[in-house]
Amino acid sequence: MRDAEWSGFFADARTLDPDAYITLDYYFECSGDPDLAAAHFCAEQSTAQWRRVGYDEDLRSTFGARVIDLEVLAAGRPEFSYDIAKPPDGGVSACRVRIAHPHGNFGPRIPNLLSAVCGEGTFFAPGLPVVKLLDIHFPDAYLAAFDGPRFGVQGIRDLLQAYNRPIFFGVIKPNIGLPPEAFSELGYASWLGGLDVAKDDEMLADTPWCPLEKRSALLGAARKRAEEETGVPKMYLANITDEVDRMVDLHDIAVANGANAVLINAMPVGLSGVRMLRKHARVPLIAHFPFIAPFSRLDHFGIHTKVFTKLQRLAGFDVIIMPGFGARMHTSDDEVRDNVAACLDPMGPIKPSLPVPGGSDWAGTLEPLYRKVGSADFGFVPGRGVFGHPMGPRGGAASVRQAWDAIANGVDIDTHAAAHEALREAIRAFRKPGDPAPAEQSDQKRTGGDS
Amino acid sequence: MRDAEWSGFFADARTLDPDAYITLDYYFECSGDPDLAAAHFCAEQSTAQWRRVGYDEDLRSTFGARVIDLEVLAAGRPEFSYDIAKPPDGGVSACRVRIAHPHGNFGPRIPNLLSAVCGEGTFFAPGLPVVKLLDIHFPDAYLAAFDGPRFGVQGIRDLLQAYNRPIFFGVIKPNIGLPPEAFSELGYASWLGGLDVAKDDEMLADTPWCPLEKRSALLGAARKRAEEETGVPKMYLANITDEVDRMVDLHDIAVANGANAVLINAMPVGLSGVRMLRKHARVPLIAHFPFIAPFSRLDHFGIHTKVFTKLQRLAGFDVIIMPGFGARMHTSDDEVRDNVAACLDPMGPIKPSLPVPGGSDWAGTLEPLYRKVGSADFGFVPGRGVFGHPMGPRGGAASVRQAWDAIANGVDIDTHAAAHEALREAIRAFRKPGDPAPAEQSDQKRTGGDS
Repeated sequence: MRDAEWSGFFADARTLDPDAYITLDYYFECSGDPDLAAAHFCAEQSTAQWRRVGYDEDLRSTFGARVIDLEVLAAGRPEFSYDIAKPPDGGVSACRVRIAHPHGNFGPRIPNLLSAVCGEGTFFAPGLPVVKLLDIHFPDAYLAAFDGPRFGVQGIRDLLQAYNRPIFFGVIKPNIGLPPEAFSELGYASWLGGLDVAKDDEMLADTPWCPLEKRSALLGAARKRAEEETGVPKMYLANITDEVDRMVDLHDIAVANGANAVLINAMPVGLSGVRMLRKHARVPLIAHFPFIAPFSRLDHFGIHTKVFTKLQRLAGFDVIIMPGFGARMHTSDDEVRDNVAACLDPMGPIKPSLPVPGGSDWAGTLEPLYRKVGSADFGFVPGRGVFGHPMGPRGGAASVRQAWDAIANGVDIDTHAAAHEALREAIRAFRKPGDPAPAEQSDQKRTGGDS
Repeated sequence: MRDAEWSGFFADARTLDPDAYITLDYYFECSGDPDLAAAHFCAEQSTAQWRRVGYDEDLRSTFGARVIDLEVLAAGRPEFSYDIAKPPDGGVSACRVRIAHPHGNFGPRIPNLLSAVCGEGTFFAPGLPVVKLLDIHFPDAYLAAFDGPRFGVQGIRDLLQAYNRPIFFGVIKPNIGLPPEAFSELGYASWLGGLDVAKDDEMLADTPWCPLEKRSALLGAARKRAEEETGVPKMYLANITDEVDRMVDLHDIAVANGANAVLINAMPVGLSGVRMLRKHARVPLIAHFPFIAPFSRLDHFGIHTKVFTKLQRLAGFDVIIMPGFGARMHTSDDEVRDNVAACLDPMGPIKPSLPVPGGSDWAGTLEPLYRKVGSADFGFVPGRGVFGHPMGPRGGAASVRQAWDAIANGVDIDTHAAAHEALREAIRAFRKPGDPAPAEQSDQKRTGGDS
């Protein structure tokens, strides 16, 4: 079946040096012979022309990406899953392929890695318009060139002296528009209520109406007061997302002023910019997730989120905020769990990152999240669930801690709420009809926005 | 119809200061009332909670994104275009919305711009799972903060002394695996044959088997020899795609060695890294397009390529290589033309970038490309069409120049080929059955790969 010309793009995995290859899992839909399509696919992502004119040479043995497994999931489908290309005469085959790609082609460099495994070769291989990069696996020999997280899960817990429970984050809201003074008061109140980490919104940057220098000075001082009053460590997570040539300076300003963690929007800045900052940073790096959904949301096209979770961990993020469970976030439970695992599973010498599955959280979503994650190694990140709480951020933070106390003591949230006002008020304000736990009908009280 | 609570996210465009807003066009599909969905959409991308608990304030007048036009394209559809969310009971509405977003929220910073206009707010607004950012428009007040291309189209033409014709690029192939000596010989031959620009493949980086220092030294010297022999300026386009903290050094090495343009894979590096390099670079910056297709290929989800073409121009690219015409590139003719226009159309103080629509080109694709672009202000970028030519790269480059001579003289390519061997050989090797121009049946001669 296989054209001899193309057999150079197939290999028995056992014959390849495992240290020399990264392994890639793709879904694809093709016209024509799947073997030929898979060979083209390898050619396009490695050495598409493997000899010079007039030379008897073959560069593929060292530089060719190779098919090491190919499964045809379906054949003869009348059309592609998406209206990208004309349905071919012979029907569409849906396949899953595993490819060994020699990382010596590009080296331990994130931009070059991305260019090879999800670049032109992947998305413009002939006869293969529908493709999704599902997973990526690195040999330790490749991982050894990366630093990964400086702190990791254990380091974050040690900094916060917070063990055997989730880490409680909160996004200070209103997220956009407040001056530093008002903004810092909200963060201060949330720490007193029980948050571990008060964070800038991912859209709040260094702006004239809320300069990072002033904001971090006020919040840095507020953090220290909150630590003195509560007797426990607190964290101010300053958003230093900006042009890459400003991030090191912004890190230094924020940290000097008392911020003890920094937020970076991973994809908008670029993972390479994050890796650069990692070399310099002396506080934990926290990732937010804008610009991942547009290339990951569809089942059969693009790049799976777990590939990006792994790459964010490789780039050095200690904490990875990601779309969480629930219909609102358009991410299946399995996909969220895959991303949690991509943070926590062994990865050679690279430390684990703390996963923070987020989206429209409040005290009442903590238990379902904890059950789905299956352990306390995660972060919880409400926004309005703390800062839109009817009692304000102090009560909002308290409601979250009370919800955890209920879980830790095996008491149901409504029973616990009877003796805990903040939790009771959270339930009254935020529980919606149809939410899992039993409750009186909510008033749907809104504080400028309900979602 | 409109809930008073949400009317703060609507505005009459005539009441807004045009200098203070960028304008965004989105397609979306929603459940429920489109007005409410559009208001939520604005809230999520700006000030989702617009007042503090216990305060009588409204941050939306300054910081709110506003709907300035909303068109319902279809209502009551049974399901969303993609299998992302459950079909809602009341049916799906497909809409087009124009939004005025106050750029003061984030400032003239690419990562913060991206976070605001195609970040979490865009892709996680409630009831709106299917969305595509179609276009973006900047006021001159915003553009003024950016440098844009240093050279632009006119600057590139002046450097090459090439006017009233396309600029002829070629991707040196084999792209991966050759040592610098063999690689540079191919580039040299292609310049003698008539290429303006010999370029590194987008996947060829600074690797131990082909270090940029050695490669640029050999190609820099070869370029100067080629200039002496041909009497015209030539360009060696060195790929310096790498981690962002290495790019400035690689630029300096390559340029000192005689590279006189540098290639950067825009998205894998990140546009902010490009903007940083732009401040330092003294030679033209050329963009390649890996990692744009995964978020732009679907008609109704993601981000339109022209948004990224505009952003690449803003970041400072003098030349933008993009997916070209033809089924292979899965990009409609209209979309390619939109991208060409995004390079060339007036953009305040920002110079035009040279568009290079590419994909499986050879001498025979030059005329259709020229006709579709509608002017000679473009670059042409064959790979195997030059370097897999039966006569080698010198003949391959000559075949392209001969094809242009035919066009410029109004002669059809087959007539011209009768007296021009390189063109004749190109037709024999590369023309496929079904290609537009008339020809004898091709031999489908392959030189290690045919696509």
